[in-house]
Amino acid sequence: MKDTLDQHRVAAEPWYKPQGDEVALFTAAWTARMPVMLKGPTGCGKTRFVEHMAWALGRPLVTIACNEDMTASDLVGRFLLDAEGTRWQDGPLTFAARHGAICYLDEVVEARQDTTVAIHPLTDDRRALPLEKKGELLRAHADFLLVISYNPGYQSLMKDLKQSTKQRFGALDFTWPEPGIEAEIVAHESGVEAGTAGRLVEIGTRARNLKGHGLDEGLSTRMLIHAGRLIAGGVAPRAACSMALVRPITDDPDMRDALDAAVATWF
Amino acid sequence: MKDTLDQHRVAAEPWYKPQGDEVALFTAAWTARMPVMLKGPTGCGKTRFVEHMAWALGRPLVTIACNEDMTASDLVGRFLLDAEGTRWQDGPLTFAARHGAICYLDEVVEARQDTTVAIHPLTDDRRALPLEKKGELLRAHADFLLVISYNPGYQSLMKDLKQSTKQRFGALDFTWPEPGIEAEIVAHESGVEAGTAGRLVEIGTRARNLKGHGLDEGLSTRMLIHAGRLIAGGVAPRAACSMALVRPITDDPDMRDALDAAVATWF
Amino acid sequence: MKDTLDQHRVAAEPWYKPQGDEVALFTAAWTARMPVMLKGPTGCGKTRFVEHMAWALGRPLVTIACNEDMTASDLVGRFLLDAEGTRWQDGPLTFAARHGAICYLDEVVEARQDTTVAIHPLTDDRRALPLEKKGELLRAHADFLLVISYNPGYQSLMKDLKQSTKQRFGALDFTWPEPGIEAEIVAHESGVEAGTAGRLVEIGTRARNLKGHGLDEGLSTRMLIHAGRLIAGGVAPRAACSMALVRPITDDPDMRDALDAAVATWF
Amino acid sequence: MKDTLDQHRVAAEPWYKPQGDEVALFTAAWTARMPVMLKGPTGCGKTRFVEHMAWALGRPLVTIACNEDMTASDLVGRFLLDAEGTRWQDGPLTFAARHGAICYLDEVVEARQDTTVAIHPLTDDRRALPLEKKGELLRAHADFLLVISYNPGYQSLMKDLKQSTKQRFGALDFTWPEPGIEAEIVAHESGVEAGTAGRLVEIGTRARNLKGHGLDEGLSTRMLIHAGRLIAGGVAPRAACSMALVRPITDDPDMRDALDAAVATWF
Amino acid sequence: MKDTLDQHRVAAEPWYKPQGDEVALFTAAWTARMPVMLKGPTGCGKTRFVEHMAWALGRPLVTIACNEDMTASDLVGRFLLDAEGTRWQDGPLTFAARHGAICYLDEVVEARQDTTVAIHPLTDDRRALPLEKKGELLRAHADFLLVISYNPGYQSLMKDLKQSTKQRFGALDFTWPEPGIEAEIVAHESGVEAGTAGRLVEIGTRARNLKGHGLDEGLSTRMLIHAGRLIAGGVAPRAACSMALVRPITDDPDMRDALDAAVATWF
Amino acid sequence: MKDTLDQHRVAAEPWYKPQGDEVALFTAAWTARMPVMLKGPTGCGKTRFVEHMAWALGRPLVTIACNEDMTASDLVGRFLLDAEGTRWQDGPLTFAARHGAICYLDEVVEARQDTTVAIHPLTDDRRALPLEKKGELLRAHADFLLVISYNPGYQSLMKDLKQSTKQRFGALDFTWPEPGIEAEIVAHESGVEAGTAGRLVEIGTRARNLKGHGLDEGLSTRMLIHAGRLIAGGVAPRAACSMALVRPITDDPDMRDALDAAVATWF
Repeated sequence: MKDTLDQHRVAAEPWYKPQGDEVALFTAAWTARMPVMLKGPTGCGKTRFVEHMAWALGRPLVTIACNEDMTASDLVGRFLLDAEGTRWQDGPLTFAARHGAICYLDEVVEARQDTTVAIHPLTDDRRALPLEKKGELLRAHADFLLVISYNPGYQSLMKDLKQSTKQRFGALDFTWPEPGIEAEIVAHESGVEAGTAGRLVEIGTRARNLKGHGLDEGLSTRMLIHAGRLIAGGVAPRAACSMALVRPITDDPDMRDALDAAVATWF
Repeated sequence: MKDTLDQHRVAAEPWYKPQGDEVALFTAAWTARMPVMLKGPTGCGKTRFVEHMAWALGRPLVTIACNEDMTASDLVGRFLLDAEGTRWQDGPLTFAARHGAICYLDEVVEARQDTTVAIHPLTDDRRALPLEKKGELLRAHADFLLVISYNPGYQSLMKDLKQSTKQRFGALDFTWPEPGIEAEIVAHESGVEAGTAGRLVEIGTRARNLKGHGLDEGLSTRMLIHAGRLIAGGVAPRAACSMALVRPITDDPDMRDALDAAVATWF
Repeated sequence: MKDTLDQHRVAAEPWYKPQGDEVALFTAAWTARMPVMLKGPTGCGKTRFVEHMAWALGRPLVTIACNEDMTASDLVGRFLLDAEGTRWQDGPLTFAARHGAICYLDEVVEARQDTTVAIHPLTDDRRALPLEKKGELLRAHADFLLVISYNPGYQSLMKDLKQSTKQRFGALDFTWPEPGIEAEIVAHESGVEAGTAGRLVEIGTRARNLKGHGLDEGLSTRMLIHAGRLIAGGVAPRAACSMALVRPITDDPDMRDALDAAVATWF
Repeated sequence: MKDTLDQHRVAAEPWYKPQGDEVALFTAAWTARMPVMLKGPTGCGKTRFVEHMAWALGRPLVTIACNEDMTASDLVGRFLLDAEGTRWQDGPLTFAARHGAICYLDEVVEARQDTTVAIHPLTDDRRALPLEKKGELLRAHADFLLVISYNPGYQSLMKDLKQSTKQRFGALDFTWPEPGIEAEIVAHESGVEAGTAGRLVEIGTRARNLKGHGLDEGLSTRMLIHAGRLIAGGVAPRAACSMALVRPITDDPDMRDALDAAVATWF
Repeated sequence: MKDTLDQHRVAAEPWYKPQGDEVALFTAAWTARMPVMLKGPTGCGKTRFVEHMAWALGRPLVTIACNEDMTASDLVGRFLLDAEGTRWQDGPLTFAARHGAICYLDEVVEARQDTTVAIHPLTDDRRALPLEKKGELLRAHADFLLVISYNPGYQSLMKDLKQSTKQRFGALDFTWPEPGIEAEIVAHESGVEAGTAGRLVEIGTRARNLKGHGLDEGLSTRMLIHAGRLIAGGVAPRAACSMALVRPITDDPDMRDALDAAVATWF
Repeated sequence: MKDTLDQHRVAAEPWYKPQGDEVALFTAAWTARMPVMLKGPTGCGKTRFVEHMAWALGRPLVTIACNEDMTASDLVGRFLLDAEGTRWQDGPLTFAARHGAICYLDEVVEARQDTTVAIHPLTDDRRALPLEKKGELLRAHADFLLVISYNPGYQSLMKDLKQSTKQRFGALDFTWPEPGIEAEIVAHESGVEAGTAGRLVEIGTRARNLKGHGLDEGLSTRMLIHAGRLIAGGVAPRAACSMALVRPITDDPDMRDALDAAVATWF
C-alpha cells in the first residue's frame, strides 16, 4: 500500500508563480481542514497550483478527472473477483481519505450532480465516508483534504454544482495571470526568450477580449506555452501560432482570419 | 456484527444548541416510533441534530447520503460472491432495521422518487422490510426509527417527495438559528471570540436577505464557522470572509462586489 | 419453503372497520378467483384491508411495493450464483403463484407500464406464469389471487395503468371513512379518548376540503393516528397536530398558517 | 426437452366460438407457413383463438407477453453460468423455432420497435434465426409458425409496428363477437343463465358506444364473464356489474354514474 | 470452425430474377473489394439478391439483422466464461472478416448511428477490425466483403446513416420489379398460374400509388407472394388478398374499404 | 506483449501526397510531445496522414474508432475473469501510453463528451493516466503521442468538443486536395489513367459546390478512388460514377438527376 501511496507523491517541486495570496489561503484552509474549491477558466493553472501545494505541504496527491459516467463506485471502491473470492478495492477517494492524501476532483461539475452528494459526509464535521457495500464507516485520516476545481463559465441549467455542495467549500478565484507574470511562465515552460513570450502573451490578451464575441473561451496559458515550444523547436512563429493558438479554438473562417491577423501584428 | 454496530455509535455528546422544542418532539416521535422528517435549508444543523438525538437516545446512527444513482439494492442489500459462493450482505437500511439503529436518509429528495417507495413498508404499522432477493420478510427491531431530511427550497417539478411518502412522517421545521444563538454556535465551533462571531452572523443575515434576489440560497451556519476558523487561524477577516462566505456562493461579479462590500462594513 | 411461507402468514387478526360491502365482494372475487384492484387515495386503509382479508381467508400474503426500477426479474425470479453453480430463486410473484398466497402489488402504477404486462398471463383463464429464463411454465396454485392497489389521483400522461391491464381486474373503490367510523379508528389505533379522536377527524375533514385548493392530497387516516399517538404520549395537541398533520403536507407558509388556524379551532 | 415441450401442449380443447372464417384462414396460413397477425381490441378473444388453433393443429404453444424491457436475449436465449461453466439456454422464441411450436408474441407493439427486427429472419423465406452469441444459425423446424397480436387502438407516434415488420404477416381482424354469440360465450364461461348473459351483453354494447366519448376502450368480453361469475356466485347483479364492469374502466365520477345508470336499466 | 462456416454457405442456387445490371455491378464491386450498400423499400428483394450473389460468388453469407439494442460487442465478439476461465468468441462481423464471408448488415439504419462507426476500419484501405477487448488487430480475409441494406423511406432526423459512413460504400438502387418481371416472380414463388399472378401485381401497383396518400409504404412483392400462396392453397382470392395484402398494411377503415374495392376489381 | 505491439506497426510506407507543411508541423508537434488534432471533412486523408506519420516516425499506431457507447473502460482497460481469478487488461489507450505508440482517436466527437475528459491527464504536463480500478498511476512512455480527428462540419449543440479539451491540442486543418494533387492520388490509388482521374476530380469539385445546397457533405477523395477502381475493373464510367459517387450520397431524385447530369458532362 505504501508503494501505491508513493506513486502519488509529487517528486520534484513543481514550478509555480503565485498570482496573489492563494498559497497562504490554501495553507490556512489546509490547517483548518476546510475543503477547497478552485474556481477559474480552462488552463489557467489550477492543476499546477494544487500540485504545487501538495508538494509544499508534503502530502500525496490523488487526482480524479470527473466525468458524467463516473459512478459512486468509481470514487468509493468496489469488490473485485479474485482467485479466493471477492476482494474489496478502495476507489481513489477512499484511498485518499484512508491514507491522508489530498484528493483533487478535477472539473467536478462534469460529475453527475447527485454523485457529488457522495462527498458530503467527508466535507462536514463528520469527515467520514460510509463504504456501504463493505459495511465500513471510514473516518478520514487527519491529513486528508478534499479539493475540487470548477469552471464558472461552464454553468448551465443542466450542469451546476448544488448550493448544498458549494457551501461545504472555501473558494479561491483563479484567472489568467497578469501579462508580466504570464510572459515569465511562458518563457520558463517553453524555452523561448522573453520577447517572444511577451508577444505570445499579447496575442493571448487580444484573443481573450473576443470571449463572448465569437469565441466561447479565451486562450489558455497552456496554449501559449504550446506555441512557444513549437517556436523553440524551430517552427516559424506564424505557423506555430496557427497550429497551437488559432486552429484549436475556432472552426469559423472569419474568426480564424481575425486571429491570424492578430498573430501577424506581432510576428 | 456487534463491532460493525459499534462503529455507528455516536461516541461523544455532539454539542447542540436547541432552537425550540425540537428535542422534546423528536423524543415523543421516537417513543411512538413515528418516522420523522427534518425540513429546512442547507447547513442549518439538521445533521448535527440527528446526531445529537442518536446520542441522547443511546441508539446507533446509520446515515445514508441519498443520490439519484442509489438503487434499492444499495439500501436493502445484495448477494456478494464469495469463496464459498454467494453471501448476502445487508444494505444500510436493512442493517439499521435489523439491529435497531436510527436510519437517517440525508437529502432524501435526491433519491429516485420511486426508490423511496421501498421504505414504505417500514413506515406503516407493518414495520417490515421485504428482502425479496433473499426471500426474507424482515420485521424491524423494536428500536428502529427512520429519519429523513428534506430541503423544501429544492422542490421542483422533477424532484419532490410523493404525498404518499410525506404522509408517513411527522415533520419538524428547521431554519437558521436566531442571531444570538447562531453567534454562540459560531464562537463555540470556530474558536473566534464573541464579537467576531457576532459580526460574522450579521454578514450572514445580510446575505440571507439576498436569497431570491440573486442568491439561490442563504449563507449557512457552516460557512460562518468556516470563516471563523480561518480568522482564528490568523487569516485577515476580509480575506477569510471572501474565501469562506462570498466566493463559494456566487460567480456573478456584481453580487460578489455587493457581498464583499457587506463584509467591509463589518470588518 | 414452508418456513418462508409461514413468515408471510398474518399472525393475528388485523383490526379492520368495514366501510361497506367490501368484505363480501372481495370474498366473492376470491371464490371466483377474479383478480382485484383496490382503488383509492393514500392512507385510507387499502393495505390494512388486504391484510384483513388474507387473515380472514387464511391465506399467506406477499406484498410487493412497486417502483419504477422494478424489473420483471424482481417479480418473477432469477438465477443466483452458488457454490455449486447457479440456483433459481423464485421472485415474490412466482413464490405467491406457486404456493397459493395472495400477492398484493402495492401502488402498481409506479411500476413500469410494460412491466405490468408480465402479470397478464396470471390474470386470465390461463392462470400461468412463463418463467422464460428457467424454461418453466408455472401453473398458478388453485388458491393464488392477485390484488393490486391504485390511486386514481396520481394518474398522469406518463403513468396510468393500461386498459388491457385494468380490464383484467374487478375493482373496489376506497375512500376516507365517514367521520364516525374514522374517529373510532383513530381512537382505537392511537389510544386517545373519543373526544380528541373526533376533533382530529374534524381537522382532517377540513384539510381534505383543501385538496385541489393548495393541497395535492387530503390528510390520511394514518396521519390522524400519528397525531393521536403524540397526544397520547403527552405532547400538547397543537404541537402534535403541527408535527403530524401540518408540516408533512405543505411547505407553503400561507397554507401552513391556514392549517395551524384550523387546528387552533379545535384544540 | 420433451417434458419441457409437453408443458406447452394445450391439454384439453379450449372452448371457442368462431366469429367468421378465421379458423379456415388461420389453417391455410399455417399450411403455407405464413406468419399471422391477430388484430383487435383488448379481451375480444385473440388469445383464446390461438390456443384453440394450437389445439386443433396439434402443435405446442409458446406464448410470450411482450414488454418494453424485453431484450433480444430474452427472446433468443443466453448463456447461463453453471457448475461446469457456461451453458446455453434457448429463449422461448428459439425453443419454439427449434421444436416446431406455434410461437405467440402477445401485444407485440409493447416490445421495443427494434427488438421486433430480431424476428425478421424467421418470417421470410430463410426461416432461420441467427443465434449470434452461440455462433449457430438455427433453421426453423418445419412446423414452426410465428403469430403476433396487435391492438390498432394503441397506435401512437411512439409505438407502432414498422411497415417492414407488418408486411411479413398475414392479418386477421378480430372484434367483439356479435351479441348472440357473445351472450352464448358469457353464459358458457360464467355459468349464468342466458337471460342474465344477454343483459350483460346489452350493458357491454352500451359501454362500447362510449369509446372515444370518455372511455378509452370498450368493455371486453372477459369483463362480462367476470360480472357473470360474481352473479353466479351469489353477488347482487348491480354490485357485480359495479365491481367487474364499471370501477375497472373509469375513475371519472360522471362516467361512473352514467355507467351505473346503464346497469340499473338492465338489472 | 469449418462446420460453423459451412452452415453459412448458401446451399442451393436462390432463384433470382435480375432487374438490371445489378449482378454485374455487384460482381465488379466484389472484385474491387468495395463495400456495397443496397438501397430500396421493404420487401423488394434486397435480401434475396445478396443471397444470390453469395451463391454466385461462392462465398459464405453472414446476415445480421440490425437493431437499436445491438452493441459493438454483439457485432465484434466478447469473452465468455467457461469451465477453464474466459474464452473469446468472435461476433458475426469478426467471424465473417476472419473467414472471408460476405457480411450483410440488414436494415443498418436501425443500428445505433454511432455503433456503425465500428465498421469504418473494415471499409477503408486498412480492412482491419480492432478487437480492443482481445488486444488483437484483425486484418480482414482477402475475400471478406461488407454489404449493408438501407431503406431511404425510413430516413428521419433521428435515424439516418452518417455521411462519413455512406461515403464508404458503393450503392445500388432497388425498387419493386416492373410488372412483367414481378408477375413472373409471384407465379414462381407462390405456385399460382400467370393470370392470377398478373392480377395480384395489378393490385400491388394500385396500392403503391397510394403511398404517401394514406399508406406509409407500398405493397411488397413478398405480400403478393403471400396472397398467391393462400390462393394456391385453396383460399378464395378475395379472402386471400384481404388477409395477405390489405389487413397487414392499414388499420384505417376507409383505406381498408378502398383497398378491398381495388381487390374486387380484379377478382 | 512485443508481438501485440508489432501488429500495430505500419509495415510498409503508406503512399501519401503532402498538401502543405503538415508533415513538418506534425513532426515538430511530435518532438514537443504536443497532442495533435486533425481537422477536416470525411475522407480527405486524415487517417492516411496519421498512418504515414507513424511510419515516418517509426512508432506503432493504435487507432480507436470512437463511438457514443465507448466507455472509459473501453479506452483504459478492465479486469477480465480468468482461470486464476481476475486479470487486468490494458485498453488501447493505456496500451499505447504504456508502450509509446501513437494513439489515434478517430472521429473523437462521436465519443461521449465527458468520456473525452478521461484523456485530459495524458494531454497536459503530467502525461499520466490514472488506472483507478487497478490502483495504478501510469506515467506515459516518452514516445507516446495522442492524436485525434475532428470533422467541424458535424458540430451541433449536442456534439462538440469541449473548449477545455480542444485547448490541449495543436490543430492541423485538412481539406480535399487541390485538383492536380487529387487527380494524382486518384490515379495512383485506383489504377485509372490520368485523364480519367482528372475527369473524376472535376465531378468531385462540382459536387462539392453543392454542399449546403442539397448535399450535406462533399464527395470524398475516397469515393473518387472507388469510382476509379470500378472503371479500372471494366465498368462503364457512367455506371461506375452512379454506383460509387451519386447513389451513396443522396436519396433525393432531383439531386440524383443533377449529379447524373454532371457525370454525363464528363463521361
